Amino acid sequence: MTSKSELGVALIGTGFMGRLHSIAYSILPSFFPELPGVRRRVVADVTESLAQRGAKQFGYDEWAVGWEKVIARSDVDIVDIATPNDFHRPIAEAALQNGKHVLCEKPLALSALDAQHMSECARNSGRVHMVAFNYRKCPAVLEAKRLIDEGALGKIFHFRALYLQDWAVSPETPFSWRFRADQSGSGALGDIGSHALDFALYLVGQISSVAGFTQTFIGSRPKPGSSDMESVDVDDCALALVRFENGAVGTFEASRFSYGRKNFLTFEISGSKGALAFNWERSNELCFYSAQDREQLQGFRTIITGPPHPFGEVLWPIPGLGTAFIETQVIQMESFIRAISEGRPVDTDFEHGWRVQEVMDAILTSSRLGQWTPVKSSSAALNKKGKE
Amino acid sequence: MTSKSELGVALIGTGFMGRLHSIAYSILPSFFPELPGVRRRVVADVTESLAQRGAKQFGYDEWAVGWEKVIARSDVDIVDIATPNDFHRPIAEAALQNGKHVLCEKPLALSALDAQHMSECARNSGRVHMVAFNYRKCPAVLEAKRLIDEGALGKIFHFRALYLQDWAVSPETPFSWRFRADQSGSGALGDIGSHALDFALYLVGQISSVAGFTQTFIGSRPKPGSSDMESVDVDDCALALVRFENGAVGTFEASRFSYGRKNFLTFEISGSKGALAFNWERSNELCFYSAQDREQLQGFRTIITGPPHPFGEVLWPIPGLGTAFIETQVIQMESFIRAISEGRPVDTDFEHGWRVQEVMDAILTSSRLGQWTPVKSSSAALNKKGKE
Amino acid sequence: MTSKSELGVALIGTGFMGRLHSIAYSILPSFFPELPGVRRRVVADVTESLAQRGAKQFGYDEWAVGWEKVIARSDVDIVDIATPNDFHRPIAEAALQNGKHVLCEKPLALSALDAQHMSECARNSGRVHMVAFNYRKCPAVLEAKRLIDEGALGKIFHFRALYLQDWAVSPETPFSWRFRADQSGSGALGDIGSHALDFALYLVGQISSVAGFTQTFIGSRPKPGSSDMESVDVDDCALALVRFENGAVGTFEASRFSYGRKNFLTFEISGSKGALAFNWERSNELCFYSAQDREQLQGFRTIITGPPHPFGEVLWPIPGLGTAFIETQVIQMESFIRAISEGRPVDTDFEHGWRVQEVMDAILTSSRLGQWTPVKSSSAALNKKGKE
Amino acid sequence: MTSKSELGVALIGTGFMGRLHSIAYSILPSFFPELPGVRRRVVADVTESLAQRGAKQFGYDEWAVGWEKVIARSDVDIVDIATPNDFHRPIAEAALQNGKHVLCEKPLALSALDAQHMSECARNSGRVHMVAFNYRKCPAVLEAKRLIDEGALGKIFHFRALYLQDWAVSPETPFSWRFRADQSGSGALGDIGSHALDFALYLVGQISSVAGFTQTFIGSRPKPGSSDMESVDVDDCALALVRFENGAVGTFEASRFSYGRKNFLTFEISGSKGALAFNWERSNELCFYSAQDREQLQGFRTIITGPPHPFGEVLWPIPGLGTAFIETQVIQMESFIRAISEGRPVDTDFEHGWRVQEVMDAILTSSRLGQWTPVKSSSAALNKKGKE
Repeated sequence: MTSKSELGVALIGTGFMGRLHSIAYSILPSFFPELPGVRRRVVADVTESLAQRGAKQFGYDEWAVGWEKVIARSDVDIVDIATPNDFHRPIAEAALQNGKHVLCEKPLALSALDAQHMSECARNSGRVHMVAFNYRKCPAVLEAKRLIDEGALGKIFHFRALYLQDWAVSPETPFSWRFRADQSGSGALGDIGSHALDFALYLVGQISSVAGFTQTFIGSRPKPGSSDMESVDVDDCALALVRFENGAVGTFEASRFSYGRKNFLTFEISGSKGALAFNWERSNELCFYSAQDREQLQGFRTIITGPPHPFGEVLWPIPGLGTAFIETQVIQMESFIRAISEGRPVDTDFEHGWRVQEVMDAILTSSRLGQWTPVKSSSAALNKKGKE
Repeated sequence: MTSKSELGVALIGTGFMGRLHSIAYSILPSFFPELPGVRRRVVADVTESLAQRGAKQFGYDEWAVGWEKVIARSDVDIVDIATPNDFHRPIAEAALQNGKHVLCEKPLALSALDAQHMSECARNSGRVHMVAFNYRKCPAVLEAKRLIDEGALGKIFHFRALYLQDWAVSPETPFSWRFRADQSGSGALGDIGSHALDFALYLVGQISSVAGFTQTFIGSRPKPGSSDMESVDVDDCALALVRFENGAVGTFEASRFSYGRKNFLTFEISGSKGALAFNWERSNELCFYSAQDREQLQGFRTIITGPPHPFGEVLWPIPGLGTAFIETQVIQMESFIRAISEGRPVDTDFEHGWRVQEVMDAILTSSRLGQWTPVKSSSAALNKKGKE
Repeated sequence: MTSKSELGVALIGTGFMGRLHSIAYSILPSFFPELPGVRRRVVADVTESLAQRGAKQFGYDEWAVGWEKVIARSDVDIVDIATPNDFHRPIAEAALQNGKHVLCEKPLALSALDAQHMSECARNSGRVHMVAFNYRKCPAVLEAKRLIDEGALGKIFHFRALYLQDWAVSPETPFSWRFRADQSGSGALGDIGSHALDFALYLVGQISSVAGFTQTFIGSRPKPGSSDMESVDVDDCALALVRFENGAVGTFEASRFSYGRKNFLTFEISGSKGALAFNWERSNELCFYSAQDREQLQGFRTIITGPPHPFGEVLWPIPGLGTAFIETQVIQMESFIRAISEGRPVDTDFEHGWRVQEVMDAILTSSRLGQWTPVKSSSAALNKKGKE
Repeated sequence: MTSKSELGVALIGTGFMGRLHSIAYSILPSFFPELPGVRRRVVADVTESLAQRGAKQFGYDEWAVGWEKVIARSDVDIVDIATPNDFHRPIAEAALQNGKHVLCEKPLALSALDAQHMSECARNSGRVHMVAFNYRKCPAVLEAKRLIDEGALGKIFHFRALYLQDWAVSPETPFSWRFRADQSGSGALGDIGSHALDFALYLVGQISSVAGFTQTFIGSRPKPGSSDMESVDVDDCALALVRFENGAVGTFEASRFSYGRKNFLTFEISGSKGALAFNWERSNELCFYSAQDREQLQGFRTIITGPPHPFGEVLWPIPGLGTAFIETQVIQMESFIRAISEGRPVDTDFEHGWRVQEVMDAILTSSRLGQWTPVKSSSAALNKKGKE
């Protein structure tokens, strides 16, 4: 618990996610005046020009070159990590060890092993730690969770999730850190698939085993502004069959090679009493089918989110004004700041981030071995390990 | 043109729109760092508690009770009017006369006559004046405008627009200023229909005459927190056939009594070469049909807005992250601040607001008379008047 | 009532509708074995080659040139009129006077006066007479009717209907009888709009007055296979505001100039308890919104028609196999043959056809006069007339 | 090639598919007068009452109890098999050996081995043999095939197909032959999944290997009209990852346990130039995305099928009249009768049916083994076998 009326944040990384987190900090009081304010103290990036520009545009008091300079400052309560993936672990661990609360972009780490270390470090720190699985903070998804928890689907049979984009189909899409395993850990799997796996664990439960497959369609790409080519050593797409501990079965797919799908993050969950479907590209809508409706009136309802739904009254006077990326960031930030304020953990803490990473690692392993592979963070695996 | 690096704003009204305008001011630099910043100087409302709360939540330096106290302050460059409609004229005229730039919520006035006065006052002021028709600032609508301007639809035959909501269907929806003609001017017609008429004038052109009809389904409503009833003297819905100067024909409808439609602001425009369709409830999407596609491949395309579209690169790295109400406010504010910065008018200036109001008045007149009614701001009417 | 186990039909006209009616006759026993069979006795058309080809393709025993030769045959019980509109009245009246049951394509006549005569003739004949408003026979529309009748919408406020096509946008679309008033009566209004008006009367009730408007966008068209031009003297589109006797208000539009809309026959009906929406282009689906659902679960349901819906068990073992044009023809024919079999009228009898025609005539009159126009078949008009 | 002007058909099985095939035979001349007619000679079923009722309702001259009695009749040219799956092989082989052309419902057999025998028998017979994969005969799917063949998608990366229904979710859904392996071969996999696998082979190409998984959610069901329970020994759902010989990767799922999905047969295929998506529940529509459209106009087009598409001019005067189950049966029958007439094979011949069955068998094997499994009919497997 914090009695501070204002928290200081150090942002590391001035890309798109850094901008969005900063927007969330700045407008949080409009929606949640009861929370402590967040002062944008300092922003760090790898060059002076980036850091300086970030400070000006995003409203920070100061800027710095290099993350090491900002994570231990006494006027900083929160370290916000919006860097490429390979920096997540060193920054997060240093920040936690310096007593800072940490918000870290997804995926948590380059590997499950790294994520496990980070999770342990976080647990030991006593601070609030959060992985930025912002899509689950969409009111439609929060309502889906509420409905599942109250039993509206009954026993769950099926889970299907896709996260499809198409920006990498062109061979001219330039090389970047997202195509390098040493900086990203994996390709589509971690970059976008991690959100879909977050949905799986959040909405259905722990995954026990997977049959996965990854593929790289284009093996090398031009360096930005050059005709020199660099090798791609991550997946362009990842597919998996998944089995949940509760008996449900599922399919999962992440791809950057699915033309026409721009930010197509979808799920469909079916059970013994009904079904839910969601597509981020129509993020204001949750589709719900209830087998308890009168027979001739059964059909998927397109529910437009608004005041009756989670965070609805806070956000809007009527339904249909819309939920986009910014809104998910605001709600995510509310969870984080409220948790700091109340001295309790968030639902997407580093342990959860590690669990997602274990599923990702199992998919990669399964793809290599060509067979079903258990997930190490599943109950069965943990129990077995406990007995050893 | 202003050489100021920072503009001071006085916000009048701390309701939902006041909040949204304030958010837009605060995050504008994240997207448009080249523009002068806007300092949230002072917020006014009718009570101390409202004004004080607004200042705290929306990030204003000071607060005041009563709009008269803030419009002439020397540290205020912009007066932002987010009040009930009956305050628009007195505040706007006073602010303009005090040399302030004015952003005014829609509809501009209680009547066309009031709007015409405001428009003249604004023209004489030499300041930037803008009516907050924010929905046209949605990237999908801006792209529609771009396509129409480049001739993608050819000669326009049809316009159809609906703005439907359902919050007033329940007889228990309490009385408010939105049900009083002396405070709102009209009901659904001005409150929401004005946005659809803005689309008509923006995308198709001037309306020459209308056959309109309005209806009130529920004649009295309970006062908030009371069982006393108040009479409703505005429309619950307004319908019209419209004829454009360019020969196109159209239909228009605004209603607060259309169950299931939450914020259903739609248009469809068809011409000799193609068609466009838009629905705010799916605000990320613009539907476009081109008769110039190969015959067997003709169909409405669902275009998901993103970097290739107006303001796209500024807002997002990829399409599909979403556009909601906040984004339209940010883009609207960009137009306003850039116009101030560059010393030029905006497209939705008070003259435009007056033209919309003339169409609304013609609909009300037509409804009374039961016959087609010319729009006084149409070329024919203005020419005729000029000759008199 | 007929005790015949087989009825003989004479089909007049071998175009698309003649084919569809014939298909319906031939497959009716698969779905309704309890009904008398229909023997396809004779088909007539204006030339020998058309008539002969029709007989062969559509399975008729004989063929004839000219309708006069077939309507009085003793082996003919039913005369099926699938000709251009100007032949409807002479054929129907002659057939009825010869004691035949008559199925007539829509619109019933060239004018309301003609339709009234036909209706009187039909009433006097004691035979079954039916206008082929087949779209109301779609299971989704039948279910809509059932829901409205049971009160699921409460008091109706709004009706909106469109029937949009785009085949006439091209100036190269050749002239045909559909562009001549003396053969068709009207253009889009009667050809397609009559279906939408049928929905209005069927689902909402009698229309009391209209404010209508028609327009012709292309004034002359090339004769088929020629560069000679013929003048178009019918509407390319018809628009109307409508008021119903029960207090509901509505909009209506029919156009052949709406690019991208192929056979876009839609309605939306909203009331005090819910709403219904339908679009023939997705004819398997009925959308229903109930304000009696739990608040956070309210949304339009997309109901896929199947066994629980009207004619569902007869047509399909499961929902989702689909309903297209043929199915509506089969269900329409079921009504017709069952009515003959049971000696009772159908719901779309000639009197109903005449009422639709009165609304069409009122729209044309209103368009000429520029003012609201009462519908002569409305209760008010009939009462007034009765008193005169 | 046949010079007969009329072919005689013997139908075996009077259920829903028997009815639909019969409708197709009866209305084929309306659409394809150039083809030989089909005389419905005789229908057989397991009881007298079923057979007699079938003859009356479906328009057959005669009826018989037991298929053996009809397959060798000299007035029968075609044997149409619409029975449970376990009868497919004995009837088809007997019919072929008696020189009949054979149309057989899908899936072809109880196992790949059976299907291979049937395929060999068919090849040796010299007759036309066809498996009733009717959904590929939908004009939207035929157009998809045309587009893929002309290269509109470029190199294919992704295939995703679902066939979901929900009639088995209820534990009260009674036991039937569809839940018995000895009569059906498999559950959802063969009953519905075979259509989705047909799409895969038709639209993308041969599948080389699969990682499959099947599950039974409800292990026993009540006998019809009884409280006695019978064990279910087939899958309620089948899921698979698939790899194609051309390098594409895919996912596949068939389930009878997906609430809200009634007859949800979908595919999405993405390549280096564009993408296609189809959903039978909206069978009139084909969605197409072309990366060759202007950048800001790229989006999935919803193409409504009509005259420009395969079989379009034959079926309809304009697009949007609709395609439902009956239309696919008519087009399927056209292929079959034309092939007989012209003495050439159809695309869904028994060899193709066998290839589908091999993929199904591989999914079942993979599910048992928990690892990727090659498909025996793939080129690699056949080449390897050839070398042995």
